[in-house]
Amino acid sequence: MITVLAGGVGAARFLEGVIQVVAPEQVAAVVNTGDDFTLHGLQISPDLDIVTCTLAGIINPAQGWGIADDTYTCLEWLGKLGAPTWFNLGDRDLALHIQRTALLQSGATLTEVADQFRRALGVQARILPMCDEPVPTHIITDSGELHFEEYLVRRRAVDSVRGVRFVNIAAATPTPEVLYALATAELIVLAPSNPVVSIGPILALPGLRAILRESNATIVAVSPIVNGAAIKGPAVPLMQALGLETTAVGIAAAYRDFLDVLVIDTVDAALQPQIEALGVRAVVTDTIMRGPAEKAALARVVLSQ
Amino acid sequence: MITVLAGGVGAARFLEGVIQVVAPEQVAAVVNTGDDFTLHGLQISPDLDIVTCTLAGIINPAQGWGIADDTYTCLEWLGKLGAPTWFNLGDRDLALHIQRTALLQSGATLTEVADQFRRALGVQARILPMCDEPVPTHIITDSGELHFEEYLVRRRAVDSVRGVRFVNIAAATPTPEVLYALATAELIVLAPSNPVVSIGPILALPGLRAILRESNATIVAVSPIVNGAAIKGPAVPLMQALGLETTAVGIAAAYRDFLDVLVIDTVDAALQPQIEALGVRAVVTDTIMRGPAEKAALARVVLSQ
Repeated sequence: MITVLAGGVGAARFLEGVIQVVAPEQVAAVVNTGDDFTLHGLQISPDLDIVTCTLAGIINPAQGWGIADDTYTCLEWLGKLGAPTWFNLGDRDLALHIQRTALLQSGATLTEVADQFRRALGVQARILPMCDEPVPTHIITDSGELHFEEYLVRRRAVDSVRGVRFVNIAAATPTPEVLYALATAELIVLAPSNPVVSIGPILALPGLRAILRESNATIVAVSPIVNGAAIKGPAVPLMQALGLETTAVGIAAAYRDFLDVLVIDTVDAALQPQIEALGVRAVVTDTIMRGPAEKAALARVVLSQ
Repeated sequence: MITVLAGGVGAARFLEGVIQVVAPEQVAAVVNTGDDFTLHGLQISPDLDIVTCTLAGIINPAQGWGIADDTYTCLEWLGKLGAPTWFNLGDRDLALHIQRTALLQSGATLTEVADQFRRALGVQARILPMCDEPVPTHIITDSGELHFEEYLVRRRAVDSVRGVRFVNIAAATPTPEVLYALATAELIVLAPSNPVVSIGPILALPGLRAILRESNATIVAVSPIVNGAAIKGPAVPLMQALGLETTAVGIAAAYRDFLDVLVIDTVDAALQPQIEALGVRAVVTDTIMRGPAEKAALARVVLSQ
């Protein structure tokens, strides 16, 4: 069993590589739900949908989120009726949010919904929400406290970040499915996802970090920071706000209490000694996943640890 | 003021004629909400939407319901996810249901939602839900008790009808806006709508029928039954189940306790004596609304009473 802690686009692309090199039934993704929020009365789970739709082969490949060839008719009409339109919801995409909301209202757990969706869309890897309770990630900014999606999408990450708050996280629990996936894994991988708002909420779940520290599995992370910059998204200002160095060394520092191996990009090879000084083995390879071949190659390096 | 008691397609087409011949600001439609139901977790109000979209000029003209030039992408994807697809919801149409559900969940009344929607879509006539409480119309059939939309759309009206039940109607009340529209009307019109499941729920609201009996307004109905058949929809089996004669005479009998005038079609001219024997004046004219000219002509006859 291989269990991958996952955020959105970077994790989804990494998982595409993983299922090229091992049987997808042996793979479980534990997915961040801190980005989840309610808009138009609908329950939206950005990271779950990105991972599910990517592995289903229906993701919009240019964006890395949203469904390929989607249309925006319903959103346009929501706008006519006075609803907010800052979050781009396609007509195909909306089906996920409508059905998820309906199932949750009828008593299903988010775990059950995610499993039903990945099966309906033909995904063989397991996709596990990190918890079933709502745990919205808030970004504390100079303009006030914003939900992460408001900070990132509505306000386009222009606000200065002072801190991050995982609302309700102390009252949440990793699901039994997540605990099982961690307990039975030979290899636990932290995907190349934002350490603050993607991996951070997973690690903040009560007991989760202790499980990793005490795990007999090999724990490998892929650095989402290459040459001092995030491959995608606002990792740099968020890491800075938390006092993390915005390099692969900062990633090693953030995970050093449980991490065995950090996979870093060739351009960062010079950081190897600093990372290993933190007690984390550094493996150098090409980590930029331009296409299927690069994704598989990166997965092979990770899985060989 | 002209107040029109309205169901769906027939009422909406009649109202199109009315606003051709009087200023729309002087017109209020009191709309049946017995067809309202929840599907995909969304609050659907078929008659309100038919009336609103018809007066907004955006209705699908061939169907009489749904929005013109709509697409069905979201519904197709809901189907992929295992959701029921028997109720045809277009992408444009879904925006109404999503936004209505969101507004109701945030505490708005159905009256407020209907008013917001008709203003957003440029409708000048007032559109008033008959009540704000859910009052689903159930059809009692040989196959069990079904919501009206399940009976009509999912099962295509194939079941034998034994009776009709207006759930929760005794606990519902006409809204203040409806009471005001009835109190200030010089003319109250019962649109050519199904007497059992469109006009019936409105008349079943506590106190409503007494208001009509005691009103000083002229009360005119347009018969939805022409030559013994409904212009559209399942009026005949529903009237039969309630023991009503399925002719314009049956319409007169259903409303005779408050009705001043029944407008009947030329083909039913021979029924005039039977209708007048019930104490209802019968006016004969062409009632089939093929286009704008016929709609306006019918409206002129009704408004001249």
